[in-house]
Amino acid sequence: MADTRDHGPVDFRTEPAKYRHWRLSFDGPVATLAMDVKEDGGLRPGYELKLNSYDLGVDLELYDAVQRLRLEHPEVGAVVVTSGKERVFCAGANIRMLSQSAHGWKVNFCKFTNETRNAIEEATAESRQTWLTAVTGPCAGGGYELALATDWIVMADDGNTAVSLPEVPLLAVLPGTGGLTRLVDKRRVRRDRADFFCTTEEGVKGRRAVEWGLVDEVVPRSKLDETVRGRARELAARTDRPAGVPGIVLAPLARTLEGDRITYSTVACAIDRERGLAEITVNAPAAAPPAEAAGVHAQGCAFWPLALARELDDLILHLRTNEEAIGVWVLRTAGRADLVEACDRLLAAHTDDWLLREIRLYLRRTWKRLDVSSRSIFALIEPGSCFAGTLLELALAADRSYMLDGTRAGDARGRATLRLTGMNFGAYAMVNGLTRLGSRFLAEPGRVEKLRARIGEDLDAAAAAEAGLVTFTPDDIDWDDEVRLALEERAAFSPDALTGMEASLRFGGPETIESKIFARLTAWQNWIFQRPNAVGAKGALQVYGTGQRSEFDRRRV
Amino acid sequence: MADTRDHGPVDFRTEPAKYRHWRLSFDGPVATLAMDVKEDGGLRPGYELKLNSYDLGVDLELYDAVQRLRLEHPEVGAVVVTSGKERVFCAGANIRMLSQSAHGWKVNFCKFTNETRNAIEEATAESRQTWLTAVTGPCAGGGYELALATDWIVMADDGNTAVSLPEVPLLAVLPGTGGLTRLVDKRRVRRDRADFFCTTEEGVKGRRAVEWGLVDEVVPRSKLDETVRGRARELAARTDRPAGVPGIVLAPLARTLEGDRITYSTVACAIDRERGLAEITVNAPAAAPPAEAAGVHAQGCAFWPLALARELDDLILHLRTNEEAIGVWVLRTAGRADLVEACDRLLAAHTDDWLLREIRLYLRRTWKRLDVSSRSIFALIEPGSCFAGTLLELALAADRSYMLDGTRAGDARGRATLRLTGMNFGAYAMVNGLTRLGSRFLAEPGRVEKLRARIGEDLDAAAAAEAGLVTFTPDDIDWDDEVRLALEERAAFSPDALTGMEASLRFGGPETIESKIFARLTAWQNWIFQRPNAVGAKGALQVYGTGQRSEFDRRRV
Repeated sequence: MADTRDHGPVDFRTEPAKYRHWRLSFDGPVATLAMDVKEDGGLRPGYELKLNSYDLGVDLELYDAVQRLRLEHPEVGAVVVTSGKERVFCAGANIRMLSQSAHGWKVNFCKFTNETRNAIEEATAESRQTWLTAVTGPCAGGGYELALATDWIVMADDGNTAVSLPEVPLLAVLPGTGGLTRLVDKRRVRRDRADFFCTTEEGVKGRRAVEWGLVDEVVPRSKLDETVRGRARELAARTDRPAGVPGIVLAPLARTLEGDRITYSTVACAIDRERGLAEITVNAPAAAPPAEAAGVHAQGCAFWPLALARELDDLILHLRTNEEAIGVWVLRTAGRADLVEACDRLLAAHTDDWLLREIRLYLRRTWKRLDVSSRSIFALIEPGSCFAGTLLELALAADRSYMLDGTRAGDARGRATLRLTGMNFGAYAMVNGLTRLGSRFLAEPGRVEKLRARIGEDLDAAAAAEAGLVTFTPDDIDWDDEVRLALEERAAFSPDALTGMEASLRFGGPETIESKIFARLTAWQNWIFQRPNAVGAKGALQVYGTGQRSEFDRRRV
Repeated sequence: MADTRDHGPVDFRTEPAKYRHWRLSFDGPVATLAMDVKEDGGLRPGYELKLNSYDLGVDLELYDAVQRLRLEHPEVGAVVVTSGKERVFCAGANIRMLSQSAHGWKVNFCKFTNETRNAIEEATAESRQTWLTAVTGPCAGGGYELALATDWIVMADDGNTAVSLPEVPLLAVLPGTGGLTRLVDKRRVRRDRADFFCTTEEGVKGRRAVEWGLVDEVVPRSKLDETVRGRARELAARTDRPAGVPGIVLAPLARTLEGDRITYSTVACAIDRERGLAEITVNAPAAAPPAEAAGVHAQGCAFWPLALARELDDLILHLRTNEEAIGVWVLRTAGRADLVEACDRLLAAHTDDWLLREIRLYLRRTWKRLDVSSRSIFALIEPGSCFAGTLLELALAADRSYMLDGTRAGDARGRATLRLTGMNFGAYAMVNGLTRLGSRFLAEPGRVEKLRARIGEDLDAAAAAEAGLVTFTPDDIDWDDEVRLALEERAAFSPDALTGMEASLRFGGPETIESKIFARLTAWQNWIFQRPNAVGAKGALQVYGTGQRSEFDRRRV
């Protein structure tokens, strides 16, 4: 079973010069991302990445490309996904990799691939960098799910090219990287046609694929490149991104891993293995931000909000993938709330600046990643903390927050306070489309609007409790015991029950395509990933490619 | 493992005189349903139903009561759920029953209990029969989830009474009978408070329960009866149900089980064990319906639409519970479409008649039960069929439909046709709130409105295909092979993968509390019901009550 214990930790940091599986090229406003997976380039031993199939190592390069295209390439208005192989588009996630992976690895892998595809859609919708796909050759399973995440799919009309979701008939699992949801919810394929399509190994090609809404265009192979180039230029022409200005450079993320401590420029994490906790501290900026947007461009990736977004993002991925047994994340902040608020003012003011928009969106994605992480999240709000605006989202994302009421004996820093900024009122939508405040006050939507009047105010524990922003407010006498007991208790519960509970309580209210992917689709897939019909010794996922036939328990559940 | 193979089939048919666990009493417009579970009255051996805990046998009586209150008691405007025991309200689903049940039994049990609780909410909202709960003594887990399904909860303020959802801390499973969803989506309890509440074995009592929105009122024990009686009378006074008119009598459902054939008055089913199919035929009425509502009242449960709703409902429950290995349900209809249409006209015309409203709602619930059944559903539309209006919903609920194009050699009945009626355009909402036509045409909502113009038309295969109402239309030459292959193929796929796929493709579009319960909540619960932390030899559900401690794999997934 593939597992982090057998290998080194996965490092999500990469850059185009180090890509092994993708080629990124540019032609004015159009970028092309060609998938050309190196067969012997698997992240783990034991499988070959044939036919442009992918594993986490392939997908983390895609993730890196999605980020860099947005921040390093303001001039790019359209991104074409294509295959670098002559005879195949993409065969989807590597089956041997899946069959030899532990349950937790499969689930975590799928969550990450889903987040990246959601980010591709966000890039199209919010960064005005429209993704499209040129399909030549078989485009199966995760290959087609990648295409589904783009907003225009052009397919070659030849005998070799088809789109398919063969997971159910071949492997007894679901197309779980958004495939089922995007079929009926994004492309709105008629449900009976979707049913037929998802049970048809060979997939659908040609006219029928267009008629059923599976792809947008089918053209002769000889016309494909020209058609795609034309579409990409049309789509790029509609962008509001600026041509002729430089992007910023995403310098390699500096982090140190020393024993159980992980340190970045704005974030630090200490792992307490005995208690099953990761104690994460986010530090406010050390100095005031630039006065104007131009200063932010000059700072580039050193600008505190961007550094924070990148570093916390990396830490979440690291903990999720490499620290499975650390079930509780304890979030603290430290530093000056006014400096956080100053950054928020900059982020809120320059809605027409492409870079500040990208930074807001990056932060939003990082907070979303936190929401969908299967870890219990507790925020501790203590003297010296700075849960203001963007950092207040950490407390609002937490399953519970504890705020110290009053001062601590011998602590000169005074009482802890919270501060709302404009960024809490719309910038950071969750996957269900609500802000975290909106999600918190489902029962009284008017309360959110009332809180606007308190932007900038320092709310102490009594005021924060009265405003409904924190869960508990023990005083100095009770704090240590109450917090210690709560964390001990949490760490002792069944990790699985907590995952299901948190996934239910965190997402009250409406559902969106994104939230349905993480709930309806993923929860069913995770169930199937436990079922003997898929993963037992005779399960379809296990016997695939061995020549043996799978054997199913025929009872429907 | 509890399993239908070890015992006789479960029979869902019962009536108040046979209840062992509930007492139903009436006081004018207020009915009281007292839970008084017989400890040694379990449906299966091996567990005692202590502390008003329940199993399927208890819940099917509740289900029966919900139906009868609506149809047999037009005078009832409010229903009080209460405990018949002195010291406890309800301890929830019986834990030993759960721990000794097979996976499929657990899942099916939860689905049925969820459907009944949804029906309680529907009775309140649509039948104007408002349910409320009087809580005295511990109200835990499924007990509180039952209370959550009612629209007003009054709790005694005494040392012994509290509401709780102790599943996560005690059993390592979820409150899966709607509890988590109703907390945050119906009662809109703040998510951090819900988090605390769901991890607190002892639950919440008194003022805090009201402040947090867990219950609506807390009153001294001495005032409870009076308060509840007052509330019930107030709520009953708001109903639009008629006082002083008789209800109908739901006579025992006549069915015969002979070998692999099940026959009712309007529905017949033949089980083909070799092929894994249930071939279900719904027969149109044999004669025209009464001309007026009064005639329907006189016919009572013999009125064809009501007989159909009851019989198909019973058949679905029977097949789901007692025929787990029959994975594909093949739906056919037979008889005269004009007689079906005549019934539909009656159902549509008398929107102010309480009984016709109840019959429409009963049909809606039966169709919903079909939608959430984990079986593949194929509709076969052949000469002699009558997929019209209410019965067309069967084809629209199917995962796929096949309609024979043209006539069959040697068959004098002519070509098969479909017919829309007004009932296809709003009467039968799915759990996601959409009609089946709306769900089908997500991509072109305008198409549904256009189809209104074709109400009453006989649509042959070409017209039905053009209108988007059927999946495939093979002719007589291709029919047998195409249908046979499709059914064989379906029956050969992994039952689990099909369950996950169908649950995703059937419910495109919006989500509601009801649909979230069957998707987000239930899918996670089913996953947990497979996890060793819950159901392994050292899992919490298995060791509960044995004195052993559970042992958890601490890795978060």
